[in-house]
Amino acid sequence: MTQLVRFGVSLEKELLGKFDQRIRSKNYTNRSEALRDLIREDLVRKEWQEGKEVAGSIALVYDHHKRELVNKLLDIQHDFGTCIISSQHIHIDHNNCLEILAVKGSPEKVQRLSDSLKAVKGVKHSALGMSTTGKDI
Amino acid sequence: MTQLVRFGVSLEKELLGKFDQRIRSKNYTNRSEALRDLIREDLVRKEWQEGKEVAGSIALVYDHHKRELVNKLLDIQHDFGTCIISSQHIHIDHNNCLEILAVKGSPEKVQRLSDSLKAVKGVKHSALGMSTTGKDI
Amino acid sequence: MTQLVRFGVSLEKELLGKFDQRIRSKNYTNRSEALRDLIREDLVRKEWQEGKEVAGSIALVYDHHKRELVNKLLDIQHDFGTCIISSQHIHIDHNNCLEILAVKGSPEKVQRLSDSLKAVKGVKHSALGMSTTGKDI
Amino acid sequence: MTQLVRFGVSLEKELLGKFDQRIRSKNYTNRSEALRDLIREDLVRKEWQEGKEVAGSIALVYDHHKRELVNKLLDIQHDFGTCIISSQHIHIDHNNCLEILAVKGSPEKVQRLSDSLKAVKGVKHSALGMSTTGKDI
Repeated sequence: MTQLVRFGVSLEKELLGKFDQRIRSKNYTNRSEALRDLIREDLVRKEWQEGKEVAGSIALVYDHHKRELVNKLLDIQHDFGTCIISSQHIHIDHNNCLEILAVKGSPEKVQRLSDSLKAVKGVKHSALGMSTTGKDI
Repeated sequence: MTQLVRFGVSLEKELLGKFDQRIRSKNYTNRSEALRDLIREDLVRKEWQEGKEVAGSIALVYDHHKRELVNKLLDIQHDFGTCIISSQHIHIDHNNCLEILAVKGSPEKVQRLSDSLKAVKGVKHSALGMSTTGKDI
Repeated sequence: MTQLVRFGVSLEKELLGKFDQRIRSKNYTNRSEALRDLIREDLVRKEWQEGKEVAGSIALVYDHHKRELVNKLLDIQHDFGTCIISSQHIHIDHNNCLEILAVKGSPEKVQRLSDSLKAVKGVKHSALGMSTTGKDI
Repeated sequence: MTQLVRFGVSLEKELLGKFDQRIRSKNYTNRSEALRDLIREDLVRKEWQEGKEVAGSIALVYDHHKRELVNKLLDIQHDFGTCIISSQHIHIDHNNCLEILAVKGSPEKVQRLSDSLKAVKGVKHSALGMSTTGKDI
């Protein structure tokens, strides 16, 4: 079981008031959880700059009518095989597909995968959701 | 069918050299596609600042052993029902789950959904992948 | 004088270890100051999204040999007069100038000023340093 | 003199319409300048990730009443001497100062300088304006 450690923090009264207001608007029920999240966000940013393994999502938007597009996307995904865990596919409208890959690997490799998919003609956009494996936080 | 328009662009020779080098490293095969992507990235940033409807992904990492966590996440997802399209779930390791929601809706609502999920105790991280429905680009 | 309030925070032992390591590498001498900074960073991001008044810097890089460039920059700066406090000018090399404006005003106006300056031919880059007046934090 | 190269770009008609609308709202007078800026922004992001030398600004906000604060800031600035070019100082109100450093150096060193200044007790915020020396673009 995870062991909790308790320690004291001192804050300017006015800053604490602003903080309480801010975390209420984000639906936090206590300060510790909000502070844990700020700490973890900072650590995950660091993982993406310097870490060995990260996880997250790549959201692709493309027009599936483009010739050869789907084959090219599959080819690239196979080249980066080890860092794609699974994918889901949504038909946004008659033309546009949203495909979301769950990814895990080194930050450089995940970034390169995202760049390579975006470079394919017919892919309109690619957005990286930079998260974590959760192992170290 | 989409109509293509052609126009001329002038660039400093040195800048063009740098650009060509950069897009080769991102696997682009021609300049037009690389410029289209820069333009669309700029437009999608604008959609998230001022637009009516965006699409993308929310990646959540959580420890599924936490009591009541999964029920709370489901409750919140039902409250925001109309903007969650589907989700996929990955068992990262014995403790950590990666859950990825495909989302569509107003930028404010999607952001609030991401904040509310992150605020739940046991959720270690939440990352928004900011993409587009592709309708206007 | 500012009144300090003290309260307890509980953290997973492992997360606390990671946090302590991270703040040492950033040269913090105590946890409270590091947490205050994470809180204030979050509040300042909010000020730029929703606030009435922010402060910061606009760094411009331009080639001063371009005809009419300096006059155009001055014209724009006068149009946005109330939100520019002062500026400093650095000769980076024979061609390139770095000009840094200290700015204060609504987030929209500061952003528009930065966009307008960047749009001038000969301005190679413009970077917004998003900070705060410090009044509310 | 800088040599200009001209080449053709093809764009979907609808995307071109959106682009023209967007650049008008940012005050561009022609497409080439807007495209040059998107290209340079992309290259400068790359410089900050992998480059040898960048330039920009560090905006600090602090309460000058804090004991020893100003001396500590000066000590740190001297430690990082070679990468600080000059600074300007603004009295925001009775309590708050805005100090803006013009900086040049390796991305890592500039980031460490910004982190170290922010870690000083009494410094409320520090914002990095990530720009360029302009030499390679």
